[in-house]
Amino acid sequence: MLPKKKLKSSFPLRLRARRVPLVLAGIGNVGKAFYGLVLEKHEYLQKHYGLDLRFKAVLKSDGGYFFGSGPRKSKRPSTAAGLLSAGPHWNPGLTAEAALKAGRPGVFVECTPSNIRTGEPGRGHIRAALRAGWHVVTANKGPLVVDFKGLRDLARRNHVFLKYSAATAAALPTLDVAMYSLAGAEIQAIEGILNGTSNYILTRMGEGEDYAEALREAQDKGIAEHNPELDVKGWDTAVKLLLIANSVLGLDLTLQEVTVEGITQLTPDLLERANRDGKAVKLIGRMTRSAGRWKAEVSPEIIDRAHPLFGVNGTNKGITFLTDTMGSVTATGGKSDPRGAAAALLKDIIHIFIHH
Amino acid sequence: MLPKKKLKSSFPLRLRARRVPLVLAGIGNVGKAFYGLVLEKHEYLQKHYGLDLRFKAVLKSDGGYFFGSGPRKSKRPSTAAGLLSAGPHWNPGLTAEAALKAGRPGVFVECTPSNIRTGEPGRGHIRAALRAGWHVVTANKGPLVVDFKGLRDLARRNHVFLKYSAATAAALPTLDVAMYSLAGAEIQAIEGILNGTSNYILTRMGEGEDYAEALREAQDKGIAEHNPELDVKGWDTAVKLLLIANSVLGLDLTLQEVTVEGITQLTPDLLERANRDGKAVKLIGRMTRSAGRWKAEVSPEIIDRAHPLFGVNGTNKGITFLTDTMGSVTATGGKSDPRGAAAALLKDIIHIFIHH
Repeated sequence: MLPKKKLKSSFPLRLRARRVPLVLAGIGNVGKAFYGLVLEKHEYLQKHYGLDLRFKAVLKSDGGYFFGSGPRKSKRPSTAAGLLSAGPHWNPGLTAEAALKAGRPGVFVECTPSNIRTGEPGRGHIRAALRAGWHVVTANKGPLVVDFKGLRDLARRNHVFLKYSAATAAALPTLDVAMYSLAGAEIQAIEGILNGTSNYILTRMGEGEDYAEALREAQDKGIAEHNPELDVKGWDTAVKLLLIANSVLGLDLTLQEVTVEGITQLTPDLLERANRDGKAVKLIGRMTRSAGRWKAEVSPEIIDRAHPLFGVNGTNKGITFLTDTMGSVTATGGKSDPRGAAAALLKDIIHIFIHH
Repeated sequence: MLPKKKLKSSFPLRLRARRVPLVLAGIGNVGKAFYGLVLEKHEYLQKHYGLDLRFKAVLKSDGGYFFGSGPRKSKRPSTAAGLLSAGPHWNPGLTAEAALKAGRPGVFVECTPSNIRTGEPGRGHIRAALRAGWHVVTANKGPLVVDFKGLRDLARRNHVFLKYSAATAAALPTLDVAMYSLAGAEIQAIEGILNGTSNYILTRMGEGEDYAEALREAQDKGIAEHNPELDVKGWDTAVKLLLIANSVLGLDLTLQEVTVEGITQLTPDLLERANRDGKAVKLIGRMTRSAGRWKAEVSPEIIDRAHPLFGVNGTNKGITFLTDTMGSVTATGGKSDPRGAAAALLKDIIHIFIHH
């Protein structure tokens, strides 16, 4: 029988739920959403998974909030907005190392801004956490892009988990489908629409807007960032593709090995024509193998109606795995917002403790 | 780090892979495909999952093949076609009970024909296996429809797994997505295209054929069975919906509680009109909740282009989960053939031993 239900029925036998200390680094949009989500779901997680998640510390760049490890839940702010530097828990000298050392290990949640060149400050945080015997879940792609192999090996050596669903398309299941739903099948190719911003722009261009208009609209709606370079030039897609490929196919690809072309050179003309023929232009991240070698590339492609990603429009994302025994399996959707990313972090934490 | 890779690296430390005895009941199309797949993947499963799957017995209605439990792999036929009643392993008196008792428990694989009224002979097999301390994976829906709660409780009492991915849309991940990829999220609604035969017929009707033509074509191609009643009247969809809902939502629905309408009354006219408006008619299995009560229904519906299942055509299947934190997540595809079902059985076996 399925573990979730097994747990439910066996749960009354446990005197109380398993207490899991959390240290959260970064309270930007995703960090805030995660803080709120854990408080919102506290009862649900106890009831359904037997997990009692407790924030022990929340780190910012200039210090942090330290709540200790006791059952002092009532003293913690009930929303991320309540985390004020003036509050009683604020400790201007608090570092990740100090927060990690004060008590038994739990899960370190990395949500600081992503820097895909240096990986910092996330890389330093993750290394410190893994070395201190903490599991790590991260929404921050930077450290993984810069040091995938190093961090993976460090996690193994310390017998802890390093999980990053939130960095690989967040609420859209990508790693899960490949590693869990396709267990026993060999993956022969991967293709994905992995960036919501560029997909939104392409969708609008397919409806007749030009690139500049579509980008401005996306920025006005808060979909595209003020500096959209990483998204529209294909680098965000490349990063996600890299992380998925390295995890699922057991590779050690670096970003330099991915051929990347973005959507900035596309003309509305091409998109309208594709549209007229009943086709669509999508920014596709693709892994293919020939003669035993994997090739990683990101580029705009014209796909037809029969393609399983054809209907993935707007800010939606999707991924298709071609396998030897299960045919082609596709996942689409998943909220593209901070709450979706927070939910992916939470999922990874559940998987660490509840091994389905 | 992700368990598949962790296993790989730790595997050299194990002297040999874990030997798992298998008893297979039923060698129709799915049973044959499973037998072949396990032999084909034997090395792969050892290498990637540390599992050494060994057929100990294969049961037919009039007896069975008994291979014992030793490492006598070379004596076993290398394809299901080699399982001849005249062969040295044939034992005309072999029953499930006898096969299960001769040696330490492993996994019982139930592939006998599905009877959704009596559940037999699968139900008897599964009960015997669970009572003998064997895990069970089943492609046979009958026993689960007739006795879901009884079998689930029996598995729990015996501390073994009862898994049925192969009975819930096979290579399309349905239970996996809900229980694993959406862990921590609450599912608020489910809708699925869960029957390949009726979806094929609807797709062809949308292209202008009438029902009788489309059905005949599906039968000629081996997609529809000679007696297509269960598929076209919606019962196969209802059964899958029931199993998914009971597992994922923790319900104890029976088939009598599902409102079922099939596709036999549809006119090509309606489908053409939907088509002209850029819409499509699909046979949808749907779970919705209002005032705290879940409602289960199967009926043909007109869906528009923005619907995540719009592009699911031909024999393809798909399922959409609406959640509180991850938005709408959809899985589509997965091979609709005996090999796909065999791959789903194999996946369930891997999950029993490798708890990701």
